[in-house]
Amino acid sequence: MTDQHKKALDFLESCRVRVDAELDRCIEQNSASERLQSAMRYSVLGGGKRIRPALCLAAANAVGSQGDAALASACAVELIHAYSLIHDDLPAMDDDELRRGRPTAHIAFDEATAILAGDALQALAFHCLTDNQSVSESARLAMVRELADASGHGGMVGGQAIDLEAVGKTLSLSELETMHRHKTGALIEASVRMGALTSPSISDDTLNSLAEYARALGLAFQVQDDLLDIEGDTEVIGKPQGSDAARAKPTYPALLGIEGARKHLSALLAKAQDSLAGFGPEADPLRAMADYVVARTH
Amino acid sequence: MTDQHKKALDFLESCRVRVDAELDRCIEQNSASERLQSAMRYSVLGGGKRIRPALCLAAANAVGSQGDAALASACAVELIHAYSLIHDDLPAMDDDELRRGRPTAHIAFDEATAILAGDALQALAFHCLTDNQSVSESARLAMVRELADASGHGGMVGGQAIDLEAVGKTLSLSELETMHRHKTGALIEASVRMGALTSPSISDDTLNSLAEYARALGLAFQVQDDLLDIEGDTEVIGKPQGSDAARAKPTYPALLGIEGARKHLSALLAKAQDSLAGFGPEADPLRAMADYVVARTH
Repeated sequence: MTDQHKKALDFLESCRVRVDAELDRCIEQNSASERLQSAMRYSVLGGGKRIRPALCLAAANAVGSQGDAALASACAVELIHAYSLIHDDLPAMDDDELRRGRPTAHIAFDEATAILAGDALQALAFHCLTDNQSVSESARLAMVRELADASGHGGMVGGQAIDLEAVGKTLSLSELETMHRHKTGALIEASVRMGALTSPSISDDTLNSLAEYARALGLAFQVQDDLLDIEGDTEVIGKPQGSDAARAKPTYPALLGIEGARKHLSALLAKAQDSLAGFGPEADPLRAMADYVVARTH
Repeated sequence: MTDQHKKALDFLESCRVRVDAELDRCIEQNSASERLQSAMRYSVLGGGKRIRPALCLAAANAVGSQGDAALASACAVELIHAYSLIHDDLPAMDDDELRRGRPTAHIAFDEATAILAGDALQALAFHCLTDNQSVSESARLAMVRELADASGHGGMVGGQAIDLEAVGKTLSLSELETMHRHKTGALIEASVRMGALTSPSISDDTLNSLAEYARALGLAFQVQDDLLDIEGDTEVIGKPQGSDAARAKPTYPALLGIEGARKHLSALLAKAQDSLAGFGPEADPLRAMADYVVARTH
């Protein structure tokens, strides 16, 4: 393990502890149904690497924000991510029974509860943002806008729809990238942007550099996911290995070959790191996260 | 038809025209998938009485807000309502094939698209609120909070979970009210509160009176819904008559008898109207809406 990788793991772990405690607190509030709340807890607090929250907190670090200014945003992006996984796993969608090595929400509970838990987690994400007393109302509103746009039909959900339509089709590299830019890229970019928006004085240039980092990283993340699906171990990745190919989903290795996909991954990593050239050591957590995403084994 | 009922219908129609034009504009923006966007349009723009948007606009009128200040909120509550209907109709939930006299979204499209369309509509609702230039950022943020809380696990989605758990059970009147206060009441109350929040100088007392009106009206709405399910005509109500009884869903008539339910409805209507005693003619649209909700035949 490289030093950079070790740093990223330490950073991820410290984020996970802070984010999990805050997520726990958020979900605990005012539920009308115990079963619904259990399903929400099960899905959100049952593991997960917290890559998006860590990117959000790392971006806040890069712009010099102190303390817990970005914690609410970090939780909000994770809640959106968690809801999208629940709905993605449903029988009418990917029909997955295993997620993070455990039964998916509709298996552990039931389909109706899983649908509702996803819906409630989305609402909770927006609630979290409004509650964040450590940034201005104007910044909170900008974060709501970022999250709504990144997660809606022009972002993540739009990408899931493209994904559904793409099963069994041959996509070009550019079509594949369009799908991933929406499906996973938009929320990763929003994570970084929302972290950066905790700084009241952030310039457009700084925000653009961070967004560029996030866009390259988002694609790199997906290329690595595709490679892990071919080369990974079911027990380590937490889902059946080879499941993309079994569903005839378009992937980078299918388009570029395994070596081609690895080269593409390196180029994206270089691009992400280059985008941070104007930052000092305050961006080290972002740099470590980029290396981690590419080197991760699950 | 009474004068009041005629006024309400005119008001509803004028709201419908304004809200539908704005909803159309919102959904048109930046979709990543044509099919997804079609499903969103189909579900949102395919009819509906627009009762929640009308309540939002009527509340804005009651507090003296001018022009389109409440239009974004009116659209946002309708988008939340529309998404909840799509998900409610899914096979794993109520398994309905007919809504507003047309095939439900998962029948007209497919189940996966219906799930995603609902998810995207929820995100779009929050987007709409952030975009509203005619109220302060602080007011917009307060509206986001209202909507998130009313639609999440402490509100609408929580109520749907209670509803699922209640099928086949005998509920007390108070349990039935708790369910409805969450399932439909929370969003109706939020509609009124978000309309009122367009006024920068609204007092807590005024907001509380309007919220009291909305809570009574929300329950009245549900009692009338239950009565229509027994007494209404399938063609007029747009769904099979008697479907509540067929599913052994707890209802007001089942608990109170038809006459008892009618009396309860009158008492709730009187309470709603009494809450508006401190308002002048600026609250007439709210008064007309209350009478309409009780007198409606579908």
